[in-house]
Amino acid sequence: MADMIITNGHILTMEPGKEREFSKGMVVIDEGIITEVREKTQETADIIVDAQGGIVMPGLVNTHTHAAMTLFRGYADDLPLSQWLQQHIWPAEAKLTDNDIYNGTLLACLEMIKSGTTCFNDMYFHMDETAKAVEKAGIRAALSYGMIEFGNKDKADAELKEGSRFVQRWHGKADGRITAMYGPHAPNTCSREFLQRVKDKAREDGVKVHIHVLETETELKEMKEKYGMCSIHMLNNIDFFDSDVIAAHCVWLSDGDIKILAEKGVNISHNPVSNMKLASGIAPVEKLLKSGANVCLGTDGCASNNNLDMFEEMKIAALLQKVSTMDPTALPAKEVLKMATVNGAKALGINAGMIRKGALADIIIVDRNKAHMRPFYDAASHLVYSANGQDVMTSIVNGKLLMQDYEVLCMDEMKIIEQASVAAEDLIQRVNE
Amino acid sequence: MADMIITNGHILTMEPGKEREFSKGMVVIDEGIITEVREKTQETADIIVDAQGGIVMPGLVNTHTHAAMTLFRGYADDLPLSQWLQQHIWPAEAKLTDNDIYNGTLLACLEMIKSGTTCFNDMYFHMDETAKAVEKAGIRAALSYGMIEFGNKDKADAELKEGSRFVQRWHGKADGRITAMYGPHAPNTCSREFLQRVKDKAREDGVKVHIHVLETETELKEMKEKYGMCSIHMLNNIDFFDSDVIAAHCVWLSDGDIKILAEKGVNISHNPVSNMKLASGIAPVEKLLKSGANVCLGTDGCASNNNLDMFEEMKIAALLQKVSTMDPTALPAKEVLKMATVNGAKALGINAGMIRKGALADIIIVDRNKAHMRPFYDAASHLVYSANGQDVMTSIVNGKLLMQDYEVLCMDEMKIIEQASVAAEDLIQRVNE
Repeated sequence: MADMIITNGHILTMEPGKEREFSKGMVVIDEGIITEVREKTQETADIIVDAQGGIVMPGLVNTHTHAAMTLFRGYADDLPLSQWLQQHIWPAEAKLTDNDIYNGTLLACLEMIKSGTTCFNDMYFHMDETAKAVEKAGIRAALSYGMIEFGNKDKADAELKEGSRFVQRWHGKADGRITAMYGPHAPNTCSREFLQRVKDKAREDGVKVHIHVLETETELKEMKEKYGMCSIHMLNNIDFFDSDVIAAHCVWLSDGDIKILAEKGVNISHNPVSNMKLASGIAPVEKLLKSGANVCLGTDGCASNNNLDMFEEMKIAALLQKVSTMDPTALPAKEVLKMATVNGAKALGINAGMIRKGALADIIIVDRNKAHMRPFYDAASHLVYSANGQDVMTSIVNGKLLMQDYEVLCMDEMKIIEQASVAAEDLIQRVNE
Repeated sequence: MADMIITNGHILTMEPGKEREFSKGMVVIDEGIITEVREKTQETADIIVDAQGGIVMPGLVNTHTHAAMTLFRGYADDLPLSQWLQQHIWPAEAKLTDNDIYNGTLLACLEMIKSGTTCFNDMYFHMDETAKAVEKAGIRAALSYGMIEFGNKDKADAELKEGSRFVQRWHGKADGRITAMYGPHAPNTCSREFLQRVKDKAREDGVKVHIHVLETETELKEMKEKYGMCSIHMLNNIDFFDSDVIAAHCVWLSDGDIKILAEKGVNISHNPVSNMKLASGIAPVEKLLKSGANVCLGTDGCASNNNLDMFEEMKIAALLQKVSTMDPTALPAKEVLKMATVNGAKALGINAGMIRKGALADIIIVDRNKAHMRPFYDAASHLVYSANGQDVMTSIVNGKLLMQDYEVLCMDEMKIIEQASVAAEDLIQRVNE
């Protein structure tokens, strides 16, 4: 007898090269793993989940965010970048406590579970609290302590020590739901020497690296001034890409950069909403995909989005490539759906992002019985262009039901919302003191 | 005793020049009109609507759509424009029946009521059926029969006759909820002579004109070839803007065009999602607003969006202006909120789009008790950057509750969804025969 069977679903497997879509399918789950995907199973199970004709698909993978920044949702918007950072975000971040990070991350986990994200990739600080929130929420996450040293040697030692401590403490914890990584902030906030040390340490520890790269033209200019070359070339020169890298943003890329990223197997997390909202620029996603690079999707933090809805991110990613290349066939629905599932899972090194035997049971069910989801011709089109996160009925992570038929089972929803609201209020009071 | 009082709301008045935002306010409604807006009223009423702390704001005004095209939601995407139109949309449109239009429009009305749109501006054909659906649904709408004659004189007479018949039959009907307009399709699908006749007829009948203008670069090229000038200059030359015009899209504008549009008081319906999805281009919204033009917002039809969510449209409008001007302060939340409410109402000539004494009681309530709506610093920011249509709890049109606490009261939701699905299935079968 299995743990769970999902019945009556419209299945979208997303299995690379063998994508299948079929109505009235069943998915069997046992011990956190998908054990069967077929039209009808002979298996029985403790829990039967009726998908009610909804789309049964891999959970979405958010490959770049800062979960606790939910506390800054709507705190400051529509400002010049330097003013936004220096007068609002940084002063508020300086006052963040462990308690804030824990409550802010739980709010983020709640929002992600409700909107169909089953795994997220986070870089921030007070990361023990982020990990504790992930442990409690039941979601899957890749976590890294964000290291910044600006070339200061003492700071470098301390940052690497904290990054390493976090990796040792959390990698593989929470029933394997937590993956730890190293998180050097960016090529223009970390020195070349430090980035080299991080790369070596990550390889030694067998973990991945999560870094911001070329989010802004400012970074590009700074790098050219300092090193006579852009971030990608500098990182390549120090063999940084010999470690397994998730590079967020990658907006300001030359064709030569794209070639390097593809050749070195760097995973690129595209964050269109944040790039648009902060006016950072438009990443050349079509070119990256054509080059063979693994491109996935991320929401970035709530201060620059201002939500964690990966469905919205998918739609805007597709729209932005179409209008920026002036080609309506650019980044079609099926491709952006891959970015948000199988490509994301690949980037984070988890056996998920698809519905197939042997994969992790990270699965969501999307409602089809709503006005904006009808009529129904093509699942990928509806998921990308019509749906949003509030169409997710059911979320399963590691074979556990975190939400079923819109009811959150893994935490007390209103309590989490209230706790985070109180934490934010206290925080802003401290900032304004 | 009044008809209705909304209590316990966070009120956003949107009254031009006198915008107020206050927590715990009340709105009194009598005979379809707002009669009081204040912190606490002495008035009593038959119906008390508890906003539960939600944001009480003007209903959104969708100033350009083709409602019945919900039937083509997801039917064809990610294709070159000509292939999309010629091989998919036009053949399907040719097979549309009265029954399809009625059912497709009802589905659209349901979707709009659920996502906070209280009034929409529609141009299509079989428009009696659209009007009947609007009458039934309880929503407000501006409707026009879409006229195309390609310079054919007989066709011109027939089209204008049908357009005129529709205006006579429906203008002011459904308790004043329906406004009729003339709908010449576009400057490159209607001759100059025909557009002149339409303008005269509209002035004679005292109704407005709804037209597509410069959606594509193709139109710009065609106009320059045919008339030696662009659409705006041609229309200006024939005094077309002496009638009261809502011009949809307006993507390919020169600075000279913008000056004309502002001077002549033309209302511009910006449709960013459709313009991005079809790779039509990016409208110069910042420049238009700076010129003093009245810019409002529209979703366009579901074939090129693929939903009718005005919250999504607001967010994408703001993001697109920021990234295209490389200025994060471009089109701030408060400005785009005006576009979707008060500017839209002004364009359609209805006394709505704001919460003030004497205005039409077209009001929505947006939930604040959800993970992605907390913490709460600024209503405009949350409405534009965090929310989507599914956060609308309650929709009131003409003082009538169409949806309360997520329950649709004006129609049988599942029946409408099923009817439209069946109609779409039959339609596609006829297309494929």
